[in-house]
Amino acid sequence: MPELRKDPVLGRWVIISTERGKRPSDFPVQARKRQAKLCPFCPNNESSTPPEISAIRENGSEPNSPGWTLRVIPNKFPALRIEGDLNREGVGIFDKMNGIGAHEVIVETPAHEKDLVDLEPEEIKNVIAAFRERIIDLKKDPRFKYILIFKNQGEAAGASLEHSHSQLIATPIIPKRVLEEMDGSKKYYEYKERCIYCDIVKQEIKQDIRVVARNDQFLAIAPFASRFPFEIWLIPRFHSSQFEDIKDEEMMNFALIVKDVLARLAKALNDPPYNLVIHSSPVENNHRNEYHWHVEIMPKLTKVAGFEWGTGFYINPTIPEDAARFLREI
Amino acid sequence: MPELRKDPVLGRWVIISTERGKRPSDFPVQARKRQAKLCPFCPNNESSTPPEISAIRENGSEPNSPGWTLRVIPNKFPALRIEGDLNREGVGIFDKMNGIGAHEVIVETPAHEKDLVDLEPEEIKNVIAAFRERIIDLKKDPRFKYILIFKNQGEAAGASLEHSHSQLIATPIIPKRVLEEMDGSKKYYEYKERCIYCDIVKQEIKQDIRVVARNDQFLAIAPFASRFPFEIWLIPRFHSSQFEDIKDEEMMNFALIVKDVLARLAKALNDPPYNLVIHSSPVENNHRNEYHWHVEIMPKLTKVAGFEWGTGFYINPTIPEDAARFLREI
Repeated sequence: MPELRKDPVLGRWVIISTERGKRPSDFPVQARKRQAKLCPFCPNNESSTPPEISAIRENGSEPNSPGWTLRVIPNKFPALRIEGDLNREGVGIFDKMNGIGAHEVIVETPAHEKDLVDLEPEEIKNVIAAFRERIIDLKKDPRFKYILIFKNQGEAAGASLEHSHSQLIATPIIPKRVLEEMDGSKKYYEYKERCIYCDIVKQEIKQDIRVVARNDQFLAIAPFASRFPFEIWLIPRFHSSQFEDIKDEEMMNFALIVKDVLARLAKALNDPPYNLVIHSSPVENNHRNEYHWHVEIMPKLTKVAGFEWGTGFYINPTIPEDAARFLREI
Repeated sequence: MPELRKDPVLGRWVIISTERGKRPSDFPVQARKRQAKLCPFCPNNESSTPPEISAIRENGSEPNSPGWTLRVIPNKFPALRIEGDLNREGVGIFDKMNGIGAHEVIVETPAHEKDLVDLEPEEIKNVIAAFRERIIDLKKDPRFKYILIFKNQGEAAGASLEHSHSQLIATPIIPKRVLEEMDGSKKYYEYKERCIYCDIVKQEIKQDIRVVARNDQFLAIAPFASRFPFEIWLIPRFHSSQFEDIKDEEMMNFALIVKDVLARLAKALNDPPYNLVIHSSPVENNHRNEYHWHVEIMPKLTKVAGFEWGTGFYINPTIPEDAARFLREI
């Protein structure tokens, strides 16, 4: 019998298709072929990107020249523009505004052939520190209400360049999806006076059937109402509503669990395309008792189709407890 | 300057990336190759599907044998099961229930090589009549709160079989996405005392910059806040909250605009994969002044990536007015 499961924060129902019960080998992933053409994110091609915002450089090398191990640059084709005013206006019954915001790229490594999972923990920690630094800097601009960090790995997951990178987009409004998460966790808090994510962490550790990996500060789980096969969430075991509050001493444990989980996914699913998204509090009122930052990793193994578009339901052919077991035992 | 546009019903913002301004030729669609392997939807293979629920048959041919021009069957691998009770229960802080519902397939034609767009208007009208008949029948089951009709065309849009078909899924709860649409249109109605979709129809006809096609009863537009390049909505020009109220004399005009719009998309975009979803009122309280059924057609030309998952925002690289003009002039 298929099972309907509800995401406790969003109220989003998911169909867990118990009878299909797909295993990792049921999701053939095309082997990635690295392309040889000129890559704007490779060393010596610094001039083909906009001037860098920041970088980690050795031996005092010049900005926008080789010698870096991590580089933050404006997106050359930004979805939103940094200059200007919102200029909200109506068009008959419709509403619009200018596309103001920031769109940056974090080039995670100079090595074209390496993915995030291939980096040393110390290098991943540097990527995390760059995220934190960019958020803290952009929060000073009062036009930005939300700052999103995400990573698209592989063409099927929407990456247009294969050189390993993450992206940051700062938006002039709090996105609908974020508001829904704030509202859902607030409702729980008002009823229980506890953070729902803290409760999830407790229950997951106690039940121990959806845990993929853990360390002293972070937990990796296949969430109860996973939308996608092998969807994994990384949640701090301590309460914290915004990612950029991460402390230096927490960053290494976070880097370790990111690497651990990505390595398990790569091994189980033959290096699948994936989206990784940091869910964090909006800029204003960001110390929230009811909200808890976390990371959602979604391997791209199934296709979103008419049913999902029409309902907001998802059909997941892999039971989350099975996904967790596969990944734990690998 | 990119533009942010708001869907007036859902409050969903979309980034219209004016500078990328992608034209049809910027979206290469892989030519589809028809596979020769045994197709369970072809005549003479009726025994490889569950027994038919209904069919249009000539010359009194037997059920589950050749001689049909349209066939409705249960899905062999249903996402939801028809037998049983919901049995809602909690698992700690989580909630679940049994996956009860109906999942049917409408095989639109016996001809394996034809798509919906290739059928005669009279045949498309028969498909529409089959949708109506199945909804009216399933509404008698009080367990079903919502009935969704959709079509996935092409593998990239989630179709697992290439023989042209649509699907029906009846769900035991009103899906989140549907509730949001009801809530959004209700808010407008409470403020304006008018149906927002009726107002959209009026404004679109008056502005005449996003209209793709029209006839006496239906309008095809590129919606103001299109999520996807060449997204098209078909809206009745008369107020009606539920699809199954469509009258015999309206079905031919609906068939004609479906065929017209699919033909324009096929020609402009080289036969793209697409999802087609009928948006209609939930089963209960279905004669709503504030809601208006319509069809959303989403060609699969771009990939949903981390930004969309994290925000619910979409980035659309084709200006809807441009999309409408391309399709109108083709």
